[in-house]
Amino acid sequence: MEQFEKLKSLLKQLPGIGEKTAERLIFAIISKGGEYSKNLSDEVRIINEAVKICSNCGGYGETDPCEICSDHRRDSSVMMVLERPRDVFIFEKSKRFRGKYHILGGLISPIDGVTPDKLSIDALLERVSKEGVGEIILSLPPTTEGETTSIYLSRLLEGRVKTVSTIARGVPFGSDFEFIDDYTLQRSIDKRQKWSE
Amino acid sequence: MEQFEKLKSLLKQLPGIGEKTAERLIFAIISKGGEYSKNLSDEVRIINEAVKICSNCGGYGETDPCEICSDHRRDSSVMMVLERPRDVFIFEKSKRFRGKYHILGGLISPIDGVTPDKLSIDALLERVSKEGVGEIILSLPPTTEGETTSIYLSRLLEGRVKTVSTIARGVPFGSDFEFIDDYTLQRSIDKRQKWSE
Repeated sequence: MEQFEKLKSLLKQLPGIGEKTAERLIFAIISKGGEYSKNLSDEVRIINEAVKICSNCGGYGETDPCEICSDHRRDSSVMMVLERPRDVFIFEKSKRFRGKYHILGGLISPIDGVTPDKLSIDALLERVSKEGVGEIILSLPPTTEGETTSIYLSRLLEGRVKTVSTIARGVPFGSDFEFIDDYTLQRSIDKRQKWSE
Repeated sequence: MEQFEKLKSLLKQLPGIGEKTAERLIFAIISKGGEYSKNLSDEVRIINEAVKICSNCGGYGETDPCEICSDHRRDSSVMMVLERPRDVFIFEKSKRFRGKYHILGGLISPIDGVTPDKLSIDALLERVSKEGVGEIILSLPPTTEGETTSIYLSRLLEGRVKTVSTIARGVPFGSDFEFIDDYTLQRSIDKRQKWSE
C-alpha cells in the first residue's frame, strides 16, 4: 500500500526506528483511529513552528530569547556549557541547576572537520563578559571529543571567569561495578571524594 | 514546554515508546526541520483515511473490498485464517502464499471475555461456502489462546472444507537451540519431517 510505504520511509528516518518498528507504529496509529491520528498529525506539524532556536544561548524555546535566558530569577553568574539543545532538558529535569546555559552546537573533532570556529564559542565569550559570568560549568559528554573540547575551553576561559568547573565524573548510583569501564573506575579512584552523607 | 509535552503524551501511547524514546523522537523531528515535520504530519493524518477495514476479509486495504479480496488471480480455494490485520502484511512479505485471507479479529480467551461469538467466525463459514474454499490454513500464534482457537475452528470446519491445515511449527532457521523453548523442541521432534534438500 502506497500510503503505508510513504509513512514508513518517513518514520525510518528517526533514530532507533527500523523497518519492523516503523510497521508496528503504523499499525498502532491505524488501530487507534482517526481522532488519535489527527491529534498526532497536528502536534507533529506544530512542534517545529512552536520550538525556536534561542539566538542567545542556542537552546530550544517557545520564545526568542528562550524562557531560561529571559528568566531574571535564574542566576546569571553561573553558566553551564552543553553540546546539544536537548541536553538542556536533561539537566532541567534534574532540577538542580538554576543558572544559565550555553549550547556549543557540537564538539571539537578535527577528523570530522569540526574545528573550534564551527562551534558557538565566540558567542560564549561575548556572553561571559556581557552577562558577568563568574563560573562556567563544562558539562560535555565523557568522550574523547568531549574531553578535548573541555580542555580547549578551560584554557580559553582562563582569566575571563573566576572558576571553570566540570560535572563530577564517577560511578553512577545504582550501577553494578561489573558494567563500569576501567577508565571510569580509574578516574573515580583518582578523583575520590571525602565521604559525606 | 507545552507543545513538547503534548506531543510526548501522544507518542507514549504507541507500543514500545516510553518517556525517553518519545523525547528522543521529538528532538529528532525538531532537528530535521519544518519540511520533514510537515510531511510526517500529512502522512500520519492521511494513513487513517487511506486505510480501510475490508468488509469481506477484515484486513486492511486502500479499497473495500481490499486489493487481495478483489484480485481474481489469487487462488480462492485456499484461505488462510489470521488473528490480526497486520498479520496479512507479514505473510504477504514472505511471498509464498497466493490464496485469500480471513481475519478473526482476536483469539478465543474466555478469561478475557473473548468467546467465539466475538470473533469473525460466522463470516468465515459464510465465505467458506460462498467462495468455494477447499483448504483452510490456520495460521494463529503458537500460544495457548492460538492453539485453543485452532482446535475450535478445526472441529467447526470439519466436513465444510476438504482440508484443515496449519503452518509448520518447529525450530526456525538461523536460531540457536539454546534459545528455543522446550515445548517447541518437543513438538519439532514429535512432528519431525523426512529429510529433503
